[in-house]
Amino acid sequence: MRLRLDVAYDGGDFHGWAAQPGLRTVEGELSAALATVLRVPSVALTCAGRTDAGVHARGQVVHVDLEDLPEGPDRLLRRVNGVLAADLRVRRAAAAPDGFDARFSAVWRRYAYRIADSPAAADPLERGHVLAWPRPLDVVAMASASEPLLGLQDFASFCKQREGATTIRTLLDLTWTREPDGVVVAAVRADAFCHSMVRSLVGCLLAVGEGRRPVAWPAEVLAAGARDAAVAVAPAHGLTLEEVGYPADDELAARSEQTRARRG
Amino acid sequence: MRLRLDVAYDGGDFHGWAAQPGLRTVEGELSAALATVLRVPSVALTCAGRTDAGVHARGQVVHVDLEDLPEGPDRLLRRVNGVLAADLRVRRAAAAPDGFDARFSAVWRRYAYRIADSPAAADPLERGHVLAWPRPLDVVAMASASEPLLGLQDFASFCKQREGATTIRTLLDLTWTREPDGVVVAAVRADAFCHSMVRSLVGCLLAVGEGRRPVAWPAEVLAAGARDAAVAVAPAHGLTLEEVGYPADDELAARSEQTRARRG
Repeated sequence: MRLRLDVAYDGGDFHGWAAQPGLRTVEGELSAALATVLRVPSVALTCAGRTDAGVHARGQVVHVDLEDLPEGPDRLLRRVNGVLAADLRVRRAAAAPDGFDARFSAVWRRYAYRIADSPAAADPLERGHVLAWPRPLDVVAMASASEPLLGLQDFASFCKQREGATTIRTLLDLTWTREPDGVVVAAVRADAFCHSMVRSLVGCLLAVGEGRRPVAWPAEVLAAGARDAAVAVAPAHGLTLEEVGYPADDELAARSEQTRARRG
Repeated sequence: MRLRLDVAYDGGDFHGWAAQPGLRTVEGELSAALATVLRVPSVALTCAGRTDAGVHARGQVVHVDLEDLPEGPDRLLRRVNGVLAADLRVRRAAAAPDGFDARFSAVWRRYAYRIADSPAAADPLERGHVLAWPRPLDVVAMASASEPLLGLQDFASFCKQREGATTIRTLLDLTWTREPDGVVVAAVRADAFCHSMVRSLVGCLLAVGEGRRPVAWPAEVLAAGARDAAVAVAPAHGLTLEEVGYPADDELAARSEQTRARRG
């Protein structure tokens, strides 16, 4: 049987999602906790978004294939959380619908990037997942600069290249809002993201927000089609994977096959 | 001149507000930072709510009397925040209106107590200021049990007694709501609080919320007029001082005199 786990973590003390020998990773900790509870030697995990070191998640989605689960998902949920440290929680566990694949069935991923650009907006209780920025940001300018980036585009300018991997993605949303408490939030949603893409987009738009670059600059960087040394990658700790979108249950298998075919 | 400072802190690494030799306290750190920036030997602070060890604040209010401030409050704000650690921030600094006293002019203090009572509500990013509770809470029962506690009452049952100090307070609000993310939040507002009062009230109401005690029990504890060993003091880290209320500027001095007279 396949189980879907909804997972949240404070990325501050993790070397990212992907298991690495000798380093504390989300995959490593979660896999070990499941193996302990299920009394099996090891458990293989598949996740929707392989977050980098320091990046957080509130809505990471994971699947795991089990021989059987005599105790039911609710009891597994309690027991796994009893083993895990407090910075990593399984929020839901349920039998996955037929055809569900946490990675390949997903139709979009949504991240938030949060920035406190004034002393009044700085909340020490949120400092682990909100970037402190020393100069005020023009949210309207950042929103205008983001619009031409939407849609199906080659994001090579904003991706760390990986050999043989496409950098073409569909950017569905890139909005900037100022919350009532003064914190600036970017909501970034795409079918998928290439490596460091959200943080590069945010770094580029920060330059517009503080007036160092014109509103037209991000579109020019995109059009150039190659990484620009003037684009700084924004720090990891402002970034949180908020939600992963899946199609209706009867479309899960088709979506998964379609994604695999395109990536292959 | 008198300066009003609006201060926020993550109480996790502080031994409370009040300065204590050899311990890291909010008053100690803030006073030292101001002394450094102002190049004076020491700075005396007065705050609206002397929070206990581990209790947080988003809206603590402090006043400080200075000989003069040639540079203006905005520049002082930036410089003090440059000296302070990230878990303590000054969010606003401004010349206080005539008659303002952070402690004695205040007409109410509002605290929030936050509880995650299910795996789905547990957010690792918020775990420093949200209590994890292992059993589901009945928010409607907790709200009903809170109502008879409102108004002008002797809260001796919920206070750590201090010799010669009154335990009569006016409880203005004690509401329980479940937020969209599943977190249970108590909003507690009173003219003032005696020592450990919010955490004792919350501890008492948690027993109702999980069904260990009837809805009528908190009112019975209050009526008994003496501390009840069955009332547990809820952990500090779920508690945050959110806001302090002051009257209109032309009533500040009168309010301050009135409070001093009543406490004396």
